[in-house]
Amino acid sequence: MKLVQFMLRDHKYRIGVLKDNQIIDLKSKFNFVPCLMVEFFASSSALAVVKEILEHPKAIYSLDEVDLLAPIMRPDKVMCIGLNYKNFCDELHTGCPGEPVVFSKFPSCITGPHSNIKLPTISNQVDWEVELAVVIGKQAKNVTASEAFDYVLGYTVAQDISARDWQVRNGGQYLLSKSMDTFCPLGPYIVTKDEIPDPHNLNLKCWVNGELKQAGNTKDLIHKIDKLIEHLSSITTLYPGDLILTGIPSGVGCNRNPPQFLKKGDILESEIEGIGRLVNHVV
Amino acid sequence: MKLVQFMLRDHKYRIGVLKDNQIIDLKSKFNFVPCLMVEFFASSSALAVVKEILEHPKAIYSLDEVDLLAPIMRPDKVMCIGLNYKNFCDELHTGCPGEPVVFSKFPSCITGPHSNIKLPTISNQVDWEVELAVVIGKQAKNVTASEAFDYVLGYTVAQDISARDWQVRNGGQYLLSKSMDTFCPLGPYIVTKDEIPDPHNLNLKCWVNGELKQAGNTKDLIHKIDKLIEHLSSITTLYPGDLILTGIPSGVGCNRNPPQFLKKGDILESEIEGIGRLVNHVV
Repeated sequence: MKLVQFMLRDHKYRIGVLKDNQIIDLKSKFNFVPCLMVEFFASSSALAVVKEILEHPKAIYSLDEVDLLAPIMRPDKVMCIGLNYKNFCDELHTGCPGEPVVFSKFPSCITGPHSNIKLPTISNQVDWEVELAVVIGKQAKNVTASEAFDYVLGYTVAQDISARDWQVRNGGQYLLSKSMDTFCPLGPYIVTKDEIPDPHNLNLKCWVNGELKQAGNTKDLIHKIDKLIEHLSSITTLYPGDLILTGIPSGVGCNRNPPQFLKKGDILESEIEGIGRLVNHVV
Repeated sequence: MKLVQFMLRDHKYRIGVLKDNQIIDLKSKFNFVPCLMVEFFASSSALAVVKEILEHPKAIYSLDEVDLLAPIMRPDKVMCIGLNYKNFCDELHTGCPGEPVVFSKFPSCITGPHSNIKLPTISNQVDWEVELAVVIGKQAKNVTASEAFDYVLGYTVAQDISARDWQVRNGGQYLLSKSMDTFCPLGPYIVTKDEIPDPHNLNLKCWVNGELKQAGNTKDLIHKIDKLIEHLSSITTLYPGDLILTGIPSGVGCNRNPPQFLKKGDILESEIEGIGRLVNHVV
């Protein structure tokens, strides 16, 4: 199942399911369905409600009638894992960390799968990072790796856009470099976990203006998804809609010779096999 | 005005105003009032609505009928400023940073003004940090220092509880050390800015089991509130309910000889002059 958030011309947020290139609106059937995915999945019966609606849907829209939004907005946490592919550690000439390095993006920087990335005036080193994002489906605390996937709703594509000049400012804390407005394109949908037999064998790629920049496979994740959930849930309670951006393979702009950064007019495309593709214009 | 969030025995969240030792419930008067402060102040007319309700209140409760919650829950951002009092920089034998050092706590670690601080099993170096917290009242982007206070709703007391052993793990990123569950006691109310003539002249203190540990005054803030709002809003859009924890004066446990940390049974009290006092038991 592909879960989406979308708007019609009234600019109100809605949640729905993408099926056969059409969007099935969930709220039109049952008014108790909230407008935000994070609120919907706060209820443990959410998936059962979706399945019931799919059997007898009410409002259905074609894709060109809607604007797709990020499938998760306003989560409690956007957790990012640094240095989680060996070839990226090699590119940085650093060792692989024994335990995950976790930083965060402010939720307000999440933007849509086809939205513009706005270059901030305060940085001229804005870089790309395609990542597999794990969407948490239910509250999780002190979960073991063996039960971790019970807490996963599904997967989506994320870009961890990063202002490299700010990554070495701010006392070495990555937060600001990662959290500028529009720095987290996300989507286009959450593919529920039942449709992804092995999340640790997915090709992920990113292109700038059609030129391939990053190409990796999630089989190379150093800290696997189940271990990440064990680690993170030992520290903080995870809530429905929380996102884990699992890290990046090599090929980012700052490590090229000469370094390359995003500029106005660029088109950034980010794809994960079996999940979907983001297309974001840089403005 | 003192804005509060509270629960009755039904455990439903409500927002209200503390006046003459009584809580005036806002939703009981107008059902359109949401249950969370961050949602209420998303509307620009929120303060006008409060004033109208105060003239002809409906439900009023005594303080012993309610449980006070943190006055802000589920904000988009908890922004914390490191190294923002000179005597704390001196205590660390480090220079004062030329620009603010910004890190964050996950919103899910916010807890109530009288709630328990739960010592995590994964740390034995849990420390105190009393801070003045600024509550953002309306959306702010690229705000200059001279207009910054227009975007402030008010002030409250925060504890930036910190697991020091984790502050030097996690690749040097502070996030996890600051974000364990219950690591952000907050409250007991938001005092609106009209009642605080000078937020840069407030005594702040913190005691463990009645023994004074920290004592400072916000006049010693290196980066003042207006400059912090200018800096932060140049990087990210601030939203109603976003919190800025402005930093700490000297006196934390980890810098003592020998170091001192919180242990089960401790009572942590944190007070800011003219704002209020947190009382949190360590369990």
